[in-house]
Amino acid sequence: MPSTNLSFPDRNSHRAWLATQAALPAGFRVGTARFDFTPREAPKPAKMTLTLIALDRPTADFAAVFTKNAFPGAPVIVGRARLGEPALGGIIVNNKISNVCAPGGVKGSERICAETARLLGMEPTEILPSSTGVIGWSLPVEAMLGALPDAVAALAGPSVIPAAEGIVTTDLYPKVRRAAIGGGSIVGIAKGAGMIEPNMATMLVYLLTDLAVPRTELRAMLARATDTSFNCISVDSDTSTSDTVALVSSGRVPCADFAAFEAALTTVCRDLAEDVVRNGEGVRHVIRLTVKNAATPALARALGKAVINAPLFKCAVAGNDPNVGRLVQAIGKHVGAHEPGADLSRLRATMGGIEIFAGGAFQLNPEKEVALVAHLRSAQLYESAPPKDGVFTAAIDYPPHERCVEITVDLGNGPASATVLGADLTHEYVSENADYRS
Amino acid sequence: MPSTNLSFPDRNSHRAWLATQAALPAGFRVGTARFDFTPREAPKPAKMTLTLIALDRPTADFAAVFTKNAFPGAPVIVGRARLGEPALGGIIVNNKISNVCAPGGVKGSERICAETARLLGMEPTEILPSSTGVIGWSLPVEAMLGALPDAVAALAGPSVIPAAEGIVTTDLYPKVRRAAIGGGSIVGIAKGAGMIEPNMATMLVYLLTDLAVPRTELRAMLARATDTSFNCISVDSDTSTSDTVALVSSGRVPCADFAAFEAALTTVCRDLAEDVVRNGEGVRHVIRLTVKNAATPALARALGKAVINAPLFKCAVAGNDPNVGRLVQAIGKHVGAHEPGADLSRLRATMGGIEIFAGGAFQLNPEKEVALVAHLRSAQLYESAPPKDGVFTAAIDYPPHERCVEITVDLGNGPASATVLGADLTHEYVSENADYRS
Repeated sequence: MPSTNLSFPDRNSHRAWLATQAALPAGFRVGTARFDFTPREAPKPAKMTLTLIALDRPTADFAAVFTKNAFPGAPVIVGRARLGEPALGGIIVNNKISNVCAPGGVKGSERICAETARLLGMEPTEILPSSTGVIGWSLPVEAMLGALPDAVAALAGPSVIPAAEGIVTTDLYPKVRRAAIGGGSIVGIAKGAGMIEPNMATMLVYLLTDLAVPRTELRAMLARATDTSFNCISVDSDTSTSDTVALVSSGRVPCADFAAFEAALTTVCRDLAEDVVRNGEGVRHVIRLTVKNAATPALARALGKAVINAPLFKCAVAGNDPNVGRLVQAIGKHVGAHEPGADLSRLRATMGGIEIFAGGAFQLNPEKEVALVAHLRSAQLYESAPPKDGVFTAAIDYPPHERCVEITVDLGNGPASATVLGADLTHEYVSENADYRS
Repeated sequence: MPSTNLSFPDRNSHRAWLATQAALPAGFRVGTARFDFTPREAPKPAKMTLTLIALDRPTADFAAVFTKNAFPGAPVIVGRARLGEPALGGIIVNNKISNVCAPGGVKGSERICAETARLLGMEPTEILPSSTGVIGWSLPVEAMLGALPDAVAALAGPSVIPAAEGIVTTDLYPKVRRAAIGGGSIVGIAKGAGMIEPNMATMLVYLLTDLAVPRTELRAMLARATDTSFNCISVDSDTSTSDTVALVSSGRVPCADFAAFEAALTTVCRDLAEDVVRNGEGVRHVIRLTVKNAATPALARALGKAVINAPLFKCAVAGNDPNVGRLVQAIGKHVGAHEPGADLSRLRATMGGIEIFAGGAFQLNPEKEVALVAHLRSAQLYESAPPKDGVFTAAIDYPPHERCVEITVDLGNGPASATVLGADLTHEYVSENADYRS
């Protein structure tokens, strides 16, 4: 990561670039419908968007991976069952309510699939449902059924942007990534900004392709691509109950090179994963940390995750404060608790290319301090603006650049490595989440 | 927990209560010295306090437990060696710099012990060192040696308060707890507000007693008491590199009942542990969560820790928002990642005594929502005040009450239970830690 080194001076230039990514592969259309409703559990007016992704005809070639959270949402339960069905013809997504452990949740999800299928002239089992939003509330099933015809009527191409915008909750901007190969393409969209430490998938990601790759190969490729992309990021260490990554092929374009397809798929997944972190709730710095020369891949990834999830280190980064002691604390915490035998004697760490730890001791001086502060500032996405009525909000709704706080941790005693992406912990995150529902 | 149900209308009443806890056991004196210095790595003026706890004569009866972080501070390395020595005569503590992985750190720590011992007429190995503060910087050893005579000259009784105040860093108020048994007492002091998820100990805790309990029994009792107190709390999931709990007996008063001593010791440890959370950085709500009827004690504690360390749930509590979906998410994340076979079908959860989850589904309605908000508000320590120059600071420097957000999670399939104490995630925490050093 990353495959690109983009920068955007303003919102319009970012939207213009998104448009270059947005052409739907052959065989797909998208449509949305937005409506007002009142949640049963907390009666205040709310808005929901339905997003429908429809194939011209159902396909046997689809793949999906889902959250490992032990309380999966009803759509995840339904979605797992869909993997055994012969074909998929559409995906129906709602935001605002995630339909997790709500009474009658699976039945409601199936009713929405059945009505979507009826309107599309397909079978109920050919529709994959997804829901994202508040956990614990019940879907407004009747209101959703009433809005479905509008979503079907809106089905259109050639742009995936309406779907990328329709699935968001607290995201600041839509996330779209595209790869062209041969005569076809892969286009992916993602939503997700909080409750992001995916375990086998991220919140909601839809990867659409017209290249003909059979189901078995698609599923193996998606598992591998997810493992090095969405499973290597964390915004806040929380694992959603709704995480879903789906990959659907319309089969319209022959695929001459499966290896090239997998490479392109992996790039799209990694770029979308990085987009999810960069647009994470309250994120002002993306942290890219590579653990090198570890004994095992699992240790490399776990050590990386321990650092990018350490609240004190995340706060230091938010403040452009090179408090690298907190980085070493996080490594020591993980090893002390989970790998007490691991050899750390050859550990060497850098930030922004500057050596900060080697030979069992910190390697710090006032000149390095100045350089480290400069590196942190250069990776900042925006300056925190003063709060209004005590609430901090993001100053921008586009990603001005793709720079990261760059960290390497070399353990010097093995063949394995891993790169993980995390984020700082900011007032904007707390403002977003201390009063999210009210 | 807790053994008390205190409340304080103002700072003065809290200080008056602290004074009732503060009488040193026979055989101990405390003294402090404060001085200015300039850290080598980041040259800005700083202040350090030396705190000396001295016995009238060295004792064989002492115990200590230390952090399991794989990068322990130099004083922890020295302290572990002290456990093998025949006697302990004093404890020398500095704040501001934690002396972790700094070049020459162990040698500097030993020099300070040697000079302390010389001034007290003791052996260097009879002094236990502790350091707390910034990780990565070097101790100003010469300046500390210069200030030591002042600390020795200040040695006095009968109050432990000067030591409780001397060891703090970001703490808002000193923490002192006392138990009287027979003709003697146990008095404990603690510091620690951030980087708090102890693993075998908390940051710095000193337990002083005049009751004569031999070394072997002291050490076994301290291990057990620590396990159900300091090892069951988390402010921010970070594990300090300096965690130390020391228990020292001057042996002046015969101990007739070891069981009563251990019970009193455990109470002092639990109350101090709760004090540490209540005074945690930016804490506005203490969360007490009991996991009941779990298959194993390890699962009970791990599930409890997963909830109290989940950032989104912590933010919801900060906002008095009963977003219990985030609580269930945290349980599901832990079980999905670490205990995929665990049976959650009988899980029943309450908050403030109100059932929120049972029978595989949320049990919510608008009336419960109102009651849950009221429970959260009743447990709030203070209202967040508007920031000054963008910085949020705690509105009070005393604990107005000992109420907690009370949560139970009943798994219904085993004999084990655990109670853990955590805290919310607030703007005050971010303000404190995004610019702690600068």
